[in-house]
Amino acid sequence: MNRRNFPASAERIAADINALAGLTEPGRPYTRRAFTPLHLEGRSFLAEQFRKAGLAVHVDAGGNLVGRRAGNNPGLGTLMLGSHSDTVPDGGRFDGIAGVIAALEVARTLTEQGIDLEHDLEIVDFLAEEVSIFGVSCIGSRSMAGIRPSEWLSREVDGQTLAQGIANAGGDPERHEIRSDIRVFLELHIEQGPILEAERLSIGVVTAIAGITRIEVKIEGRADHAGTTPMDRRADALVAASRMVLDIEALATTMASGRAHFAATVGEFFLLPNAANVIPSHVRMLIDIRAEKPEDAKLFARALQKTADEIGSASGTTISLNPISEAAAVPMNSYLQEVLSDIAGVIGQGHRRLASGAGHDAAFIARVAPAGMIFIPCRDGRSHAAEEFAETNDIALGAMVLLEAVKRLDNEMSTTTDAERH
Amino acid sequence: MNRRNFPASAERIAADINALAGLTEPGRPYTRRAFTPLHLEGRSFLAEQFRKAGLAVHVDAGGNLVGRRAGNNPGLGTLMLGSHSDTVPDGGRFDGIAGVIAALEVARTLTEQGIDLEHDLEIVDFLAEEVSIFGVSCIGSRSMAGIRPSEWLSREVDGQTLAQGIANAGGDPERHEIRSDIRVFLELHIEQGPILEAERLSIGVVTAIAGITRIEVKIEGRADHAGTTPMDRRADALVAASRMVLDIEALATTMASGRAHFAATVGEFFLLPNAANVIPSHVRMLIDIRAEKPEDAKLFARALQKTADEIGSASGTTISLNPISEAAAVPMNSYLQEVLSDIAGVIGQGHRRLASGAGHDAAFIARVAPAGMIFIPCRDGRSHAAEEFAETNDIALGAMVLLEAVKRLDNEMSTTTDAERH
Repeated sequence: MNRRNFPASAERIAADINALAGLTEPGRPYTRRAFTPLHLEGRSFLAEQFRKAGLAVHVDAGGNLVGRRAGNNPGLGTLMLGSHSDTVPDGGRFDGIAGVIAALEVARTLTEQGIDLEHDLEIVDFLAEEVSIFGVSCIGSRSMAGIRPSEWLSREVDGQTLAQGIANAGGDPERHEIRSDIRVFLELHIEQGPILEAERLSIGVVTAIAGITRIEVKIEGRADHAGTTPMDRRADALVAASRMVLDIEALATTMASGRAHFAATVGEFFLLPNAANVIPSHVRMLIDIRAEKPEDAKLFARALQKTADEIGSASGTTISLNPISEAAAVPMNSYLQEVLSDIAGVIGQGHRRLASGAGHDAAFIARVAPAGMIFIPCRDGRSHAAEEFAETNDIALGAMVLLEAVKRLDNEMSTTTDAERH
Repeated sequence: MNRRNFPASAERIAADINALAGLTEPGRPYTRRAFTPLHLEGRSFLAEQFRKAGLAVHVDAGGNLVGRRAGNNPGLGTLMLGSHSDTVPDGGRFDGIAGVIAALEVARTLTEQGIDLEHDLEIVDFLAEEVSIFGVSCIGSRSMAGIRPSEWLSREVDGQTLAQGIANAGGDPERHEIRSDIRVFLELHIEQGPILEAERLSIGVVTAIAGITRIEVKIEGRADHAGTTPMDRRADALVAASRMVLDIEALATTMASGRAHFAATVGEFFLLPNAANVIPSHVRMLIDIRAEKPEDAKLFARALQKTADEIGSASGTTISLNPISEAAAVPMNSYLQEVLSDIAGVIGQGHRRLASGAGHDAAFIARVAPAGMIFIPCRDGRSHAAEEFAETNDIALGAMVLLEAVKRLDNEMSTTTDAERH
């Protein structure tokens, strides 16, 4: 592939990602959580790179770092690219960061190639996409969509409220800057799963961001003496919980064998009294359910209730299910899926469509604009860990897809809009 | 039953047990842990009651409170009765305490009835039978048997070493007072299980104190993103652990269907990273195995290894088993079992033999003397909880069995000894 066909610079992308990777809590790679001084240091670095790319930099009311490149036709609205630069504790170098740097590289390449767009272009580093120190996530993108709950502002950690955190990042917690001018939002992200790597594909075009349903399971048995209570006279909450875990896994595996993405996981699990010589009396566990199709989540919840009733009555325990949260699946704009797939094909990259099991800022921006996402492969599907890894060339390829998409959409949407105006 | 047939006083027993129950951490019934000022308060009360019963009171080197009643024939040795007065945190009023008070009631009744024994009689409150603040148990009875590990003495909690704790209780941590003069040791204890209550029996004659084997299971899977990792590409440590828990329960239930007592319990269970959106990577759990027959524990451990290997290779996890501790089963003296069963029958009480799934001081005293135990029923099999309950009349009946056993053994063993001497 010659220079003209592959203008995005892998070297520049690698340099920026390495520079951010250096801004981590000492001895704890890679930790740069939102609302910490390190995160603001990362932001300063990004703002400097945004400026060098010729972007006008500001922080919006939601605390999002925005680099703006004016288009020839100011009335047409904005093409927006972005992701986030904050990490989870002990996280990786690429989750979110690859998307911000790829977006930046698109802006740099446009400037380098002397390409003017009709639309304004904005590169965004959304504030606090990961679950932050305040226990909530996607703070910046929720604000841009006008749905950041106001009661979150008074959350306080270590003497700092979320409102103060947003203000420290340069935002204005008192208001939302809801965007109605975004014509298109595109986000590049590492897959955080193993599919692209396993299928040796370079680009995943995201069909939907799966809905997340969380159901708390509480099991109440009886705390008897482990040594003296005969096996047939027990109400062991851990034994009942183990049956639940296996039934959840079997049911989820069956549902995942269809075409739509489905996964269910018991990730949190607490036992009482948790003593060597006492039969467990209580288990509390949390089921995380991801479904591309909302009806799958409902079907699973119904089957789960049946399973819980059966296990409860067979084991002499009481099992209750409490829905904790439910976020509906967010389909990505179907026209953008077409465009992104087509471009991947045109530039000769293996690609497929797939759902995102993880949440992303794009799920919130999709409320105010047509949104699309592309995934790039990551090693072993690992993320949220120091081992998280993506090849620089894969990020550059993804940036290339974004660049071509921006150019094509800028052109098509200028035309369409003109046509619509008449 | 007239006064002559039932001389032990239920009223006195109830009064003593209630008095001790009043000595608890405020608002936390019933908590009187060894090595606390409350425990020493309980000891003062007991010492006073011992003295009122005509016993000479001292604390031995092991920190055990001993009430002594001299026999007519000093060379014959000692008949010893006892149990312990310390509790677990949030424990009950009867575990150990019923045995100490029943023993005291035997001494009181003998004195009241003007009965002299040939042997010396000792009533003992063993120090720290329960797992104490120092993390170890049966400190007093181990010392009396000469097997309290010397390295325990330097264990330190809240600025106090175990050595200081023993000294504060009146003992001498520098030495053991190993007893070779005990002709017979008898302990009454609540069953801590449901069998006597379910079978409407008053007395259980203990056949053996089950061995306790503890095996740590470590399961290592892979921490992947719960939303993005397909169901068929996971190495979920919790799913593997759940299979282990169910196999352990099934295997133990099969083994418990034989005549000998067998139980296995997973009581401790820890998960990592224990986060809602991360597939569990590590589980550590502890299996508590109680076996009346040592070969059963070995058979179980072998089957467990096979199960672990199978589950590990099927689930892509690594499962390791680490034996943590192993205490062999301790059979109770068979002649004493005969005597106790016979007496229960003679005084017209329903009785059966059964193993103890829990550990007791008798297991250590059995190393230096013939030892026997009787169980009395407790409500719902509950113990180590505030709900622990035993009927005063059942304790008095048990005291009656001890009294008759002491009288018979004093007589028989004087004869036997005389015969042996010649």
